[in-house]
Amino acid sequence: MIVAGASGYAGALAAALVYNHPRLELAAATSRTDAGTRLDRLHPRYRVPIELTELDPDRLEQVDAGIVAYPAGASAPVCAAMRGLGVEVVDLSADFRLRDIPTYQKWYGTHGDPDLLVSAVYGLAELDRERIRDADLVANPGCYPTAALLALAPLAERGVIDTVVIDAKSGVSGAGRGAGERLSFVNLTENFTAYGVEGHRHQPEIEQELLRLASSASLPGAMRSWEGRVTFVPHLLPLDQGLLASCYVDLVEPLEAEALAELYAERYAGEPFVEVVDRAPGVREVRETNLCRIHAASIGARKAAIFAAIDNLWKGAAGQAVQNLNLMLGLDETEGLV
Amino acid sequence: MIVAGASGYAGALAAALVYNHPRLELAAATSRTDAGTRLDRLHPRYRVPIELTELDPDRLEQVDAGIVAYPAGASAPVCAAMRGLGVEVVDLSADFRLRDIPTYQKWYGTHGDPDLLVSAVYGLAELDRERIRDADLVANPGCYPTAALLALAPLAERGVIDTVVIDAKSGVSGAGRGAGERLSFVNLTENFTAYGVEGHRHQPEIEQELLRLASSASLPGAMRSWEGRVTFVPHLLPLDQGLLASCYVDLVEPLEAEALAELYAERYAGEPFVEVVDRAPGVREVRETNLCRIHAASIGARKAAIFAAIDNLWKGAAGQAVQNLNLMLGLDETEGLV
Amino acid sequence: MIVAGASGYAGALAAALVYNHPRLELAAATSRTDAGTRLDRLHPRYRVPIELTELDPDRLEQVDAGIVAYPAGASAPVCAAMRGLGVEVVDLSADFRLRDIPTYQKWYGTHGDPDLLVSAVYGLAELDRERIRDADLVANPGCYPTAALLALAPLAERGVIDTVVIDAKSGVSGAGRGAGERLSFVNLTENFTAYGVEGHRHQPEIEQELLRLASSASLPGAMRSWEGRVTFVPHLLPLDQGLLASCYVDLVEPLEAEALAELYAERYAGEPFVEVVDRAPGVREVRETNLCRIHAASIGARKAAIFAAIDNLWKGAAGQAVQNLNLMLGLDETEGLV
Amino acid sequence: MIVAGASGYAGALAAALVYNHPRLELAAATSRTDAGTRLDRLHPRYRVPIELTELDPDRLEQVDAGIVAYPAGASAPVCAAMRGLGVEVVDLSADFRLRDIPTYQKWYGTHGDPDLLVSAVYGLAELDRERIRDADLVANPGCYPTAALLALAPLAERGVIDTVVIDAKSGVSGAGRGAGERLSFVNLTENFTAYGVEGHRHQPEIEQELLRLASSASLPGAMRSWEGRVTFVPHLLPLDQGLLASCYVDLVEPLEAEALAELYAERYAGEPFVEVVDRAPGVREVRETNLCRIHAASIGARKAAIFAAIDNLWKGAAGQAVQNLNLMLGLDETEGLV
Repeated sequence: MIVAGASGYAGALAAALVYNHPRLELAAATSRTDAGTRLDRLHPRYRVPIELTELDPDRLEQVDAGIVAYPAGASAPVCAAMRGLGVEVVDLSADFRLRDIPTYQKWYGTHGDPDLLVSAVYGLAELDRERIRDADLVANPGCYPTAALLALAPLAERGVIDTVVIDAKSGVSGAGRGAGERLSFVNLTENFTAYGVEGHRHQPEIEQELLRLASSASLPGAMRSWEGRVTFVPHLLPLDQGLLASCYVDLVEPLEAEALAELYAERYAGEPFVEVVDRAPGVREVRETNLCRIHAASIGARKAAIFAAIDNLWKGAAGQAVQNLNLMLGLDETEGLV
Repeated sequence: MIVAGASGYAGALAAALVYNHPRLELAAATSRTDAGTRLDRLHPRYRVPIELTELDPDRLEQVDAGIVAYPAGASAPVCAAMRGLGVEVVDLSADFRLRDIPTYQKWYGTHGDPDLLVSAVYGLAELDRERIRDADLVANPGCYPTAALLALAPLAERGVIDTVVIDAKSGVSGAGRGAGERLSFVNLTENFTAYGVEGHRHQPEIEQELLRLASSASLPGAMRSWEGRVTFVPHLLPLDQGLLASCYVDLVEPLEAEALAELYAERYAGEPFVEVVDRAPGVREVRETNLCRIHAASIGARKAAIFAAIDNLWKGAAGQAVQNLNLMLGLDETEGLV
Repeated sequence: MIVAGASGYAGALAAALVYNHPRLELAAATSRTDAGTRLDRLHPRYRVPIELTELDPDRLEQVDAGIVAYPAGASAPVCAAMRGLGVEVVDLSADFRLRDIPTYQKWYGTHGDPDLLVSAVYGLAELDRERIRDADLVANPGCYPTAALLALAPLAERGVIDTVVIDAKSGVSGAGRGAGERLSFVNLTENFTAYGVEGHRHQPEIEQELLRLASSASLPGAMRSWEGRVTFVPHLLPLDQGLLASCYVDLVEPLEAEALAELYAERYAGEPFVEVVDRAPGVREVRETNLCRIHAASIGARKAAIFAAIDNLWKGAAGQAVQNLNLMLGLDETEGLV
Repeated sequence: MIVAGASGYAGALAAALVYNHPRLELAAATSRTDAGTRLDRLHPRYRVPIELTELDPDRLEQVDAGIVAYPAGASAPVCAAMRGLGVEVVDLSADFRLRDIPTYQKWYGTHGDPDLLVSAVYGLAELDRERIRDADLVANPGCYPTAALLALAPLAERGVIDTVVIDAKSGVSGAGRGAGERLSFVNLTENFTAYGVEGHRHQPEIEQELLRLASSASLPGAMRSWEGRVTFVPHLLPLDQGLLASCYVDLVEPLEAEALAELYAERYAGEPFVEVVDRAPGVREVRETNLCRIHAASIGARKAAIFAAIDNLWKGAAGQAVQNLNLMLGLDETEGLV
């Protein structure tokens, strides 16, 4: 196993999870900016006594799987190189999430390897477990889409969502390292604000997957375009790890409170990392775990409020990457995770 | 001037504002639970070297105005006693906010003085300045309604709101003192959650005032009932003072971005405590001030997102109370406030 | 295994650690105040789906070991009952820490079972591993003494401490649940203060153990009384879990920087839960682990500054309790811990 | 009035204080890095609607006083230019604090204007009010020295300090803007650590002033060198504004608790910005004020613990600068401050 890009928050956690994984071996953790530094000095909270190295193509030949935690754009070529050597890849960037190249380019710029896109599978195990098992390249979902899609999937699959407002709130680690003064302690403590109001790149990702989910439904409203039906606004919380998506759904038909509760309980029965709870979850409850806790409340004849809490670095990034890797490698989905 | 109920967060700040007010004199600050304690020992951040006392009816005769910061239900009788002596009153509780007694009783229990209700004026100066000037009893708005109504008023007055989702987030001081373990540091730090999902008492207050605002509009949609058109869900932020209301509005007609910006700029031009800004405001910007900062963004043909930030203890409670008192007493509205 | 008093912070974590322990089985978790509630509802961050029960004497007969997390005074009788049935006990309270009954009574009141005291062993494994292995009743050290003693032991054992100032800072969870408004979020966020300046009950515990450590030294200064040689002042940090003890030592003889570093490296070589590091440790690094990270710096000819960081709920309470239990039961000391 | 270097935390607050000062006019606020930006956009919490400009020598001729908030080294030339034009200057940097050039150079590098040093006065008003009144160039003390010296002055002036350990803790704003990832929210939230253990540049500043204070005492111990008698270690608190200095003093002679309390009460009687209180002060109490709250406790026959709390940006920087400016300009010392 190799983790490429292990100096950022998500990459470092991925390296730590792999390092402590009972069935995987961390052969190398690479960094373009911090090669030569030990990972546990860069991130003292992770006890990974391994020196970060430059990405060495020769080494790639010796591993069978890798997690890539590069920025969007820079990731695709690395993934392509790995795939060329037969390495199974989970990519944490956005490079293989969006199926539509123009949409990708609008938000992220030139795509590094459009050809590879067709072989990639969107890696939300609770929605697409079997395809992930068979995949060699998995696009790990964004943190906001992970929470929003888990919150909305049971309704989307039944084709009963008319419109939805997703008011999402994330801890600061979601913005990554090195973002400078904007993410300084002084600017964020005792503060709270919305951002990306004019548009956020996770919105097309959410719409794309909602469409795919709804396509499987037989109800009339299901196949409509999602254009204009999703309002998504992220906010920045004064905390490190944690993400709550509050989703306010206008339904195409009435849904009683009891039916709503049943729908969610049944949909996620047996899921190791989704818990449907009977009250609004706090992000603290799922911190440092791969859990998503969901509460679905009926708040009117045709309205539902769904709240999904995850740790943005775990289920929203590195934890989910290991979950996907477990599936791809034929391991128990929960190995090495809590 | 007297402040009754000065041991709680809002009451203590009200006492401090009055104590430092250039035109008012704090004759007494009372407390049912902490009489005998000096205010600056109970709340060391306020330098008010005054001993809290029991509420003394004899003393009431000597003051011309008072702020009452009692809990709902307990407040009405105190306000009635003051009014009986000719004292002008700003009431921070909910006792005189809701015009409809059954609605009040559903959320707060038996009303302490329904007769007095008719003489009370809802105290949001930016919406009703003249009526407040003439009033002897002002119901200070709740913290969430203050932010939500200031965010929505320009649209509501034009009758262009079809439906609105208000996703509101408040600092912990909004929940008051003495709430026990639920508000302990350990439970709230690094945490964030929704509450009151099944219904919150500030919702009917918001609906009541939106209806009143819309009634002045001449557009066809304006007079419709607000039943089912407002979704309101509060959340608890891991910070002390600060409240952000994120309002997602479905409009009855298209409104261009420019027209939206102009509408807000014009509506609040000259308002001393409302600032329309060109980006999403952070709650930290308005902390320890009576300001409301608002950002209005067009997010689709018939959709607008409005963000309003206040300090829940200032503009959401004690600051606004002093603003109202200034108006009632014929003083400059901004005296003693920042 | 039973955990008695599992509704408090330390007891709940102890129950969670035992529940997830690969070699232990959690037969019951008891609570005097919250019996009937599921542990994972009371503390949603711990995924322990077990209902808290009243302490049932019949059940005690079926377990071979227990952790008691009762308040001081209330703990001794429970420990005595368990010992009477042959149950091995780790007691998290102060009831069996202080060897001197009058000293105990000065700080904690009447002792619940002085006779049992003689059989108790002070449970700091890094100082007394063998005695703990043989013990049936272990007094788990206080959180401040744990950090302070690990910081000072290498110097104390050599008899080179003349005087020491221990300026200690703890996260809020160290003060326990249910402490009311004093520990409310509003009072503590953005705040920091000293407490117990006039005397804190952890001071005699630190002095007692320093004396014991120094008694093994052969240097002249070692055997002196510790009366007046230890200054200990705790402070309250605005964070949940984490404790830093900053110890400023006046030495009886010069100690070069290199010799100091070597002394610490050698003393703790091979210790699974103590890491000597070359820079001042942050409490965040050891959060949710049983680690103690120590940095020893020479700051003058006869002065050293020693910094020890722990998680007050783990190494300072529940984690250390499991470490002790592992030793008592002949298991690997690190089982079930990170 | 001009504020040079108004884009940093202390400079921005200084500009805001001057802007709102009833007797001063803010003619210009300059910035080398952010000229062209409005101050209230850079620091939205300060409502100063003024555009930052380049420092314009022509403009300097039109002002009578200035506050310089440049980094050490860069500040001296600016101060010299101002002084050359007859402008009265308060310098927030370290450039004119240390009397000894070699000591300055050890910690800060080449000094920008050693000749000017002789005319500078160390600006701690509570210790040197009259000299500040007469000064044209005042060196505003560092944040740690401000708290430490106010804590220790009553004892130092009596010559009764033998040795002292100063364990100081500061909020993050004390480290200034633009310090990059080290001061990121993610690195600091829920964290706490010591820094500068191997030596901190505020130590010689503290020693220099303690020596000056002690020189006025007639007791035998007073005139001894301070070499090796002061231990100073700063720590970084997970909060924005606030600084607590915990000072543990070994006294040269016994001092009863009552005498200690009296000494402090008398020493600071009448001081507008120092309050001696009977319990350990929390930094939250003095936030956004120019206050220093001090508690002096006897903790042994010859030991005292003194705790001093300030807001590092106010009394520790910009607030104190305005206090000094008020004195230099013959205004009431408290004007424009709270």
